[in-house]
Amino acid sequence: MDKIKVAVVGYGNIGKYSLQAVKAASDMELVGVVRRKESVGKKSPELEGVKVVADINELGKVDVAILAVPSREIPVTAKALVEKGISTVDSFDIHGKDILDLYKSLDAECKKSGAKAIISAGWDPGTDSLIRTLLLAMAPKGLTYTNFGPGMSMGHSVVARSKQGVKDALSMTIPLGTGVHRRDVYVQLEDGADFKTVENAIKTDSYFCHDDTHVHEVSCVNDLRDMGHGVLLERKGVSGETQNQRFQFTMQINNPALTGQVLASCARAVVKQQPGCYTLPQIAPYDLVNIDLDEFLLHTV
Amino acid sequence: MDKIKVAVVGYGNIGKYSLQAVKAASDMELVGVVRRKESVGKKSPELEGVKVVADINELGKVDVAILAVPSREIPVTAKALVEKGISTVDSFDIHGKDILDLYKSLDAECKKSGAKAIISAGWDPGTDSLIRTLLLAMAPKGLTYTNFGPGMSMGHSVVARSKQGVKDALSMTIPLGTGVHRRDVYVQLEDGADFKTVENAIKTDSYFCHDDTHVHEVSCVNDLRDMGHGVLLERKGVSGETQNQRFQFTMQINNPALTGQVLASCARAVVKQQPGCYTLPQIAPYDLVNIDLDEFLLHTV
Repeated sequence: MDKIKVAVVGYGNIGKYSLQAVKAASDMELVGVVRRKESVGKKSPELEGVKVVADINELGKVDVAILAVPSREIPVTAKALVEKGISTVDSFDIHGKDILDLYKSLDAECKKSGAKAIISAGWDPGTDSLIRTLLLAMAPKGLTYTNFGPGMSMGHSVVARSKQGVKDALSMTIPLGTGVHRRDVYVQLEDGADFKTVENAIKTDSYFCHDDTHVHEVSCVNDLRDMGHGVLLERKGVSGETQNQRFQFTMQINNPALTGQVLASCARAVVKQQPGCYTLPQIAPYDLVNIDLDEFLLHTV
Repeated sequence: MDKIKVAVVGYGNIGKYSLQAVKAASDMELVGVVRRKESVGKKSPELEGVKVVADINELGKVDVAILAVPSREIPVTAKALVEKGISTVDSFDIHGKDILDLYKSLDAECKKSGAKAIISAGWDPGTDSLIRTLLLAMAPKGLTYTNFGPGMSMGHSVVARSKQGVKDALSMTIPLGTGVHRRDVYVQLEDGADFKTVENAIKTDSYFCHDDTHVHEVSCVNDLRDMGHGVLLERKGVSGETQNQRFQFTMQINNPALTGQVLASCARAVVKQQPGCYTLPQIAPYDLVNIDLDEFLLHTV
């Protein structure tokens, strides 16, 4: 079978780990990396032998683009690609109405162009969403709690870093139990920036305003950086008429490495779907793996 | 939307709990229960108002039949129904080649008749299979361990009970760690039966011969019966090039209640598939739940 031709768009943390996951997959071919014009010439040893361009059109045929750009750039970036007929996968991470809007707009575009898109395909939203769905099927009545961390939230860190006067920032997610979290944001200021102004800008942003958020000024954010993360997903519910069914999913993982891997696995799955937009619970998990069906039925099921 | 017309075929433990789960689902209509001829007349309070028949043709239109019969009867029972164009779901639990054979035979029949079948849709095989698949997508290299129990295995108990000279039997699964189990089988003998003969018949059966199996004679099996069960599914693996990613799924559940619920959720999913046969990892988890898509994208993803 022909290998799936995959491009990685964006080359921050997620882009780097997505590239590793694509390279490790025997059924995928990395056709290149798309970076901002000013970054195309940057050398780095792991890009040795990889085509790096500023415009995806320079890469020839691309089956799937992995969008490793900040969430807020994803709606525009994804739309431009699916219009060209290139399928996309992304880890868009703004829960709620933003996911619904992105889904509707991309679904309509995909159905016009024949492309396919899997959105919000990291671990939350993403694989956690899939597990939450499965638990709803196993015990339809009850409560699910998603407890994150302790760990750095990449999405929240990017948002904190984008505030004026912030040189570098790191947002830690601290689980307080039963789905309640505190956010500890560590900021390194630009010369002359006012801490109170930065603190206010962070606390009032929609990423932070729903949680108990504490902003701390530090001299070097880089010394605090650890990309380990975790989750504890719990459900207690009712199967049929039977109460007190209990389920737990927990993981301790390198955050961008898992996101990059989920994106790569979704690059495999997306080409198997009908034109349209999907979230992870809307695709068959078997489509994510590179295992022959007989082998799969014998050894995984 | 029209309700899904569901029949429950077989009325042992799994049948009883499947019926509860179907009754609890607002998008399903229980059209009746199919029992052996000699059991049709049996009264039980929970069957008040339920049509009980010996032949499924007496139930009128049936969209999906939940097969709550012993695993070894499933291949023949399922084939007869899909030939008629009735979709089926079952919790066939003999891992390996038996699942592969059932899949191939039903897939061919379904594609002829236009019916759909989801096989091996309990919790293992079933929801555990789905989680094992997801973990393979999250960390493609590594090892997964499935640790069962302590708890009663219904499939193994049925097999032990089927041996000549056995009046009643219960098979407990004891987890020894990293996927290794001991089986403790408690048997109540018929008058005059020889324990050594029964012990040998159990230990050499294909359900038991791969595990360390201990057979114990007791005076009353019913006094030991507790339908609580559990599983601990663990994976340590590699995402891209990042080692030591750790995942755990665990649950403590009423075993037949969960199986009955999974079967009912699959009765919902099966009607949404294309003609053919599926295992749980081959269908989209969203198809298992009765949640409007907008609502789902807003609150579950």
